[in-house]
Amino acid sequence: MTLPERAARAWHGDSADDAYEYDRATAVSPVGNGVYEGVLDPGWVIGSALNGGYVMALAGRAIALELTGRGHTDPFSVSAYFLTPSVPGPVTVRVRTVRHGGRRSTVAATVTQQQDGAEVERITLLATYGALADNPPEVLLETPVVALPPVEQCVAMADGGGEAPPLMHRFDIRFDPATAGWALGRPSGEPELRGWFSLADDRPLDAVSMLLVLDAFPPVTFGLGQMGWAPTLELTAHVRAVPVPGPVAVRLTGSNVAGGHFAEDCEVWDSTGRLVAQSRQLALLPRPTHR
Amino acid sequence: MTLPERAARAWHGDSADDAYEYDRATAVSPVGNGVYEGVLDPGWVIGSALNGGYVMALAGRAIALELTGRGHTDPFSVSAYFLTPSVPGPVTVRVRTVRHGGRRSTVAATVTQQQDGAEVERITLLATYGALADNPPEVLLETPVVALPPVEQCVAMADGGGEAPPLMHRFDIRFDPATAGWALGRPSGEPELRGWFSLADDRPLDAVSMLLVLDAFPPVTFGLGQMGWAPTLELTAHVRAVPVPGPVAVRLTGSNVAGGHFAEDCEVWDSTGRLVAQSRQLALLPRPTHR
Repeated sequence: MTLPERAARAWHGDSADDAYEYDRATAVSPVGNGVYEGVLDPGWVIGSALNGGYVMALAGRAIALELTGRGHTDPFSVSAYFLTPSVPGPVTVRVRTVRHGGRRSTVAATVTQQQDGAEVERITLLATYGALADNPPEVLLETPVVALPPVEQCVAMADGGGEAPPLMHRFDIRFDPATAGWALGRPSGEPELRGWFSLADDRPLDAVSMLLVLDAFPPVTFGLGQMGWAPTLELTAHVRAVPVPGPVAVRLTGSNVAGGHFAEDCEVWDSTGRLVAQSRQLALLPRPTHR
Repeated sequence: MTLPERAARAWHGDSADDAYEYDRATAVSPVGNGVYEGVLDPGWVIGSALNGGYVMALAGRAIALELTGRGHTDPFSVSAYFLTPSVPGPVTVRVRTVRHGGRRSTVAATVTQQQDGAEVERITLLATYGALADNPPEVLLETPVVALPPVEQCVAMADGGGEAPPLMHRFDIRFDPATAGWALGRPSGEPELRGWFSLADDRPLDAVSMLLVLDAFPPVTFGLGQMGWAPTLELTAHVRAVPVPGPVAVRLTGSNVAGGHFAEDCEVWDSTGRLVAQSRQLALLPRPTHR
């Protein structure tokens, strides 16, 4: 199979395609009654846990499979509440239909893992799926695409000289140098990170994979020099259009850093300048002295 | 009981206080096993359905009651997926604990009504509650409070000359004149609404009532001259601090009006200038020719 063939198959959501590492790592098998089984891959670890966006994408793929018969395979809105850190190994996704409509379906889903002989819930989700291609084409008001330097003037994680965590080998992120100072110990002081994103093996991005992209960057608090892990309490993603092939432009902005929490907004544009996805998460401020 | 006494009781979440119409209309009674019953009040109707924020506040109050024993009575994050329009009459809220932690509890909740002999789901929710007062006090980065003219220079709904829907009698909203042109048939053309908000009977605003405030204004698409009802698919609210007494300042901004949908962000500041709550909702663009 040639690369374009692989791309075309992945592009059309053919889940039998395991030529790309994203497809292998997010593969789930139906075992009936809305239950799907998969394996969380250690290559997607950041810190001591799996990246939340990766686990969301795996769950999002299970939901898409569950709704394939309805033709509702694109996430419109996904709200994920993070309960306990996911770890490499077997994982179960349970999808329960809340409501089927002609244009949209809403489901509740849980992501669980066995731990010490008990089933422990990692993430609980609500989601509305539909078919993005069936939405009317009119764009009445656009969110202007973030201004980024050309990719060759941007900074890859490896350029910082440090040893990147496993997750960073899955991604090809090129940071706008103006927002990459934290990697060299000189944070910008601004709660903003910007850059280009592709999967490392150039697997084309589709609607479900936006759940991964929206949580792929480091916490926006890196820009403020707060370098610790920032656990997400809740993340809601809105996917608004299927991206065209190619790298996407990403902007993270942080706000209301107060009371031990902060809001992080992420926006993703495809190469046509269309805002294809956005998210907001409520996260805990890193407090190194308390962990 | 004097007004200050009533205010103090309501302020401390004493659910026995029915001196204010908000407290009467959002009252719920526990019937065991996490089930709460209430009555949706016709005074909170907008169009042909009940205001989504009002129903969220009623559900939010049931969740607070369920978590009272844990001390987790303040919403930190609430994600509501709207399934069918709520109508006046009896309503049931079912609260299921997903996870209890020391500082936070996460629940799933459903709002249902009987319709034609069957139980129909109106809203399905996920929520994380805690105790806002227990959060660390530091404010590291504030979202600057929206600039509003003094309340006496702002425009009440009644000033527009039209007949206001029942819901508008529950609220005392004073619109910034710069964003109130739609009421006179001269929309600003900008996807932004700003104004002061109080409950009509000056019932003090608490953390749970933020769920009401965040969905109290007309759709931000009014600013674009799109005057139809804009059904919410999903709304996630983050409550970040308990407001001090007095009117709150509110800003709605719309973005990415495309593909038949739009994003509406709402921010709420108390009179000290603290951002106390914010939300984003994904809504359907009014399409008068299609409804």
